[in-house]
Amino acid sequence: MLNDDNKNSSATLSLEKWFDTHQTELLDKFFTFLRFKSVSTDPAFSPDVLSCADWVKQQLQALDFDVQVWPTSGYPTLFASYNKAGPEQPTVLIYHHYDVQPVDPLNEWKSDPFEPTLRDGQIFARGAQDNKGQCFYTLAALRAMKEIFGSYPVNIKLCIEGEEESGSMGLKLILKEKAAELKADYLVVADAGIPSMDCPAVALGVRGIVTLEIEVEGPNGDLHSGTHGGVVMNPIHALAQILSGLRDSETGRVEVPGFYDSIQETSPEDLKQIHLEFDEEKYAKTFGAKPLGGEKGFKPMQRAWMRPTLEVNGISGGYAGAGFKTVLPAKATAKVSCRLVPNQDPDQIYKLVEKAVLALAPVGVKVRVTKYPGGGPALRANVNSPITQAFAKAYSEVFALPCRNIFEGGSIPLTASLGEAAQAEVLFMGLGLPDDAIHGPNEHFGVDRLKKGFLIMARALQLMRNGK
Amino acid sequence: MLNDDNKNSSATLSLEKWFDTHQTELLDKFFTFLRFKSVSTDPAFSPDVLSCADWVKQQLQALDFDVQVWPTSGYPTLFASYNKAGPEQPTVLIYHHYDVQPVDPLNEWKSDPFEPTLRDGQIFARGAQDNKGQCFYTLAALRAMKEIFGSYPVNIKLCIEGEEESGSMGLKLILKEKAAELKADYLVVADAGIPSMDCPAVALGVRGIVTLEIEVEGPNGDLHSGTHGGVVMNPIHALAQILSGLRDSETGRVEVPGFYDSIQETSPEDLKQIHLEFDEEKYAKTFGAKPLGGEKGFKPMQRAWMRPTLEVNGISGGYAGAGFKTVLPAKATAKVSCRLVPNQDPDQIYKLVEKAVLALAPVGVKVRVTKYPGGGPALRANVNSPITQAFAKAYSEVFALPCRNIFEGGSIPLTASLGEAAQAEVLFMGLGLPDDAIHGPNEHFGVDRLKKGFLIMARALQLMRNGK
Repeated sequence: MLNDDNKNSSATLSLEKWFDTHQTELLDKFFTFLRFKSVSTDPAFSPDVLSCADWVKQQLQALDFDVQVWPTSGYPTLFASYNKAGPEQPTVLIYHHYDVQPVDPLNEWKSDPFEPTLRDGQIFARGAQDNKGQCFYTLAALRAMKEIFGSYPVNIKLCIEGEEESGSMGLKLILKEKAAELKADYLVVADAGIPSMDCPAVALGVRGIVTLEIEVEGPNGDLHSGTHGGVVMNPIHALAQILSGLRDSETGRVEVPGFYDSIQETSPEDLKQIHLEFDEEKYAKTFGAKPLGGEKGFKPMQRAWMRPTLEVNGISGGYAGAGFKTVLPAKATAKVSCRLVPNQDPDQIYKLVEKAVLALAPVGVKVRVTKYPGGGPALRANVNSPITQAFAKAYSEVFALPCRNIFEGGSIPLTASLGEAAQAEVLFMGLGLPDDAIHGPNEHFGVDRLKKGFLIMARALQLMRNGK
Repeated sequence: MLNDDNKNSSATLSLEKWFDTHQTELLDKFFTFLRFKSVSTDPAFSPDVLSCADWVKQQLQALDFDVQVWPTSGYPTLFASYNKAGPEQPTVLIYHHYDVQPVDPLNEWKSDPFEPTLRDGQIFARGAQDNKGQCFYTLAALRAMKEIFGSYPVNIKLCIEGEEESGSMGLKLILKEKAAELKADYLVVADAGIPSMDCPAVALGVRGIVTLEIEVEGPNGDLHSGTHGGVVMNPIHALAQILSGLRDSETGRVEVPGFYDSIQETSPEDLKQIHLEFDEEKYAKTFGAKPLGGEKGFKPMQRAWMRPTLEVNGISGGYAGAGFKTVLPAKATAKVSCRLVPNQDPDQIYKLVEKAVLALAPVGVKVRVTKYPGGGPALRANVNSPITQAFAKAYSEVFALPCRNIFEGGSIPLTASLGEAAQAEVLFMGLGLPDDAIHGPNEHFGVDRLKKGFLIMARALQLMRNGK
């Protein structure tokens, strides 16, 4: 049963007041968080990632939590727990990450990605939303609750990792050993978003992911395309042929034998619970492209949430600098990711893609497929769970609008294993918007959403009291 | 009639002796030439290209030639002429270029591309062969002839440009205005090669070339491939589909409507005159790839010399750095070149390719095709011309082997216009070898070939006396 007493409005009022009073100080602190170049995928940034971890640790230590730094094979995970709410109260485990995506193409950023800049109420910086912004409102909410109420309504655990953007391998490998410490009733993965500011929503699931690289090797060095063009097979041609063969250009379907075999179609009743509304014109205006990708026969939000994909995330080969170089390149490479839906096993899908790629390889080149570490299956939340209901109510209150059910098209690969280790029911929440440009240039997050996230997090934790 | 008197062997002997005596000094000077980073395609190297031009000017001034620096819209052309052989002697115009290709991928060079290094008799540096090495033996031959004989057997003009590797636009635009000065009986384009050290050969032609860029634009910025994957069309997918559609994967033919329409097949009699021998095993061993590219039904050397191609020389899009980035990129780009054979018009072929690309573009992306400046048609020399015969004889003498007839698969785009402006009969010669790695990492040229080129150039000029 959820705690829904009359103190709600006064509690929210105090929280709001606290946020407003502290806003300058909060933004200052948030900017410090954003300045750490915590790009986990590129070893060049290793010292920055570690400094960032240390800064997060200091923030946790300022709360009334027991703080631990868990070393991993990669970057440390920060773990903090508060259990003074008593054994009759539920335990809520909140997941965040302090690492960020790379910043290329750097020249498309309007301001330095690691020097946060406030423009029109939006904070521009790498990680402003994903996930430092969302992590920061949780930290701020916990601090405010401590300062205003002196205690927390439920038992709380925080798990803040440093490798979400590069596969989460470090944390994944220690999950079993840390299972007792992670044990919780509910897992809140606060790395999601809402469709728009007039559509508050909780996310009932994420897609899974598996990432891989296709490398096509031709000659043992770059050759002159005049002397050798027409003689030897061009690795870029071969790669284009392979990538083109992986996708049916008519239907948009992934042409990997077996790719769709295991998936369960969403039932019409389940579909009704989901907010599939989508403004094609607004999308085209915001992103500069019409929503014409993916499989034919499905609505855009079905394609984003309930259908698997195979996308090329990067391609390179030969000379791509200024001017022209008549080279016949030694190799060409593509980075590929598949987004997965429930019942698709990442390892199995990887094997199917690898097999399809090798079958498409033309003669005259060597083709190698390599799986990147990390990845994970899709995950679904329970719409009737107390944690879902608490957050849905908090969203409704803070936005003064009905809360919808959505999914996330993105992946938080670790979530399935983390939920399992903690034996917790999972929910995805967040204040991201589709045009936050996470992973791209000019990522941003609104000050208004920092505040709303802060209020929702605090309010939902209050609503969870006695909600085991 | 060619001059073929008995002084030949003694003349060659003096030239050989001169080369051997001066070898240390020559290499020292050659290395200075190679140290100029004269990469014409990249504006960053502009000062280096200009310094290199100045150095070449100084070398020409040391000869008994009238030297001019021709300003162009790009880099200057060095022009030098000697006309004291008298009006009864033929005029031979010799073409070289002092600019070089970019050096990427730099990390694959075993030594600094701009710090020439001698290993096993080979000089490693960008431009060691193409075309500084070949230019240098011409300059050395002219200096030796001046020092040994005090004069030149024929009238000689030198045209050394600085934009061959970036389209030759500067020189091209002033050809008409310089026609009187360029006027010559023969044009020797000394930028070619031989199949192997036991197969001396003159090149009876080059392929033409046209270069272009295909740019595929999707969303107005890089997007998260989870949130947007399956919603919007991925520009890399679109580009792969286009490139794949430009080439028949079964036959290797270029799938551009009209691409082959204008070309003349080489007649069986003409084919007999050409040295088509090709060692597949040696090729595979040298270049690490079997000769399995290009059109089916033609021998490798036919494909390299007498068939047109469409090759992708560079491709880029999304994230290609270390690790993985789940981005759905805003755009993807490919650099494409077509090698052309006689009767294919570069502008016409460009239009056909552009049309084919646009016809292959899927919905949901914008596709733009841009022609790079430069390019030019294929060109054929006359096997019976005095210039062909003089060089063939010089090759035979210097190599002590019969001289073969070959073609060049590469292009020297300006040649057709230059030959026209000079009203000269053209011949292609050179001492390049297929594995010199020109345009690639570890480009090199042998000291033995520097000497042979020196001897052949001097000897052929002697043989041209009275050979109008």
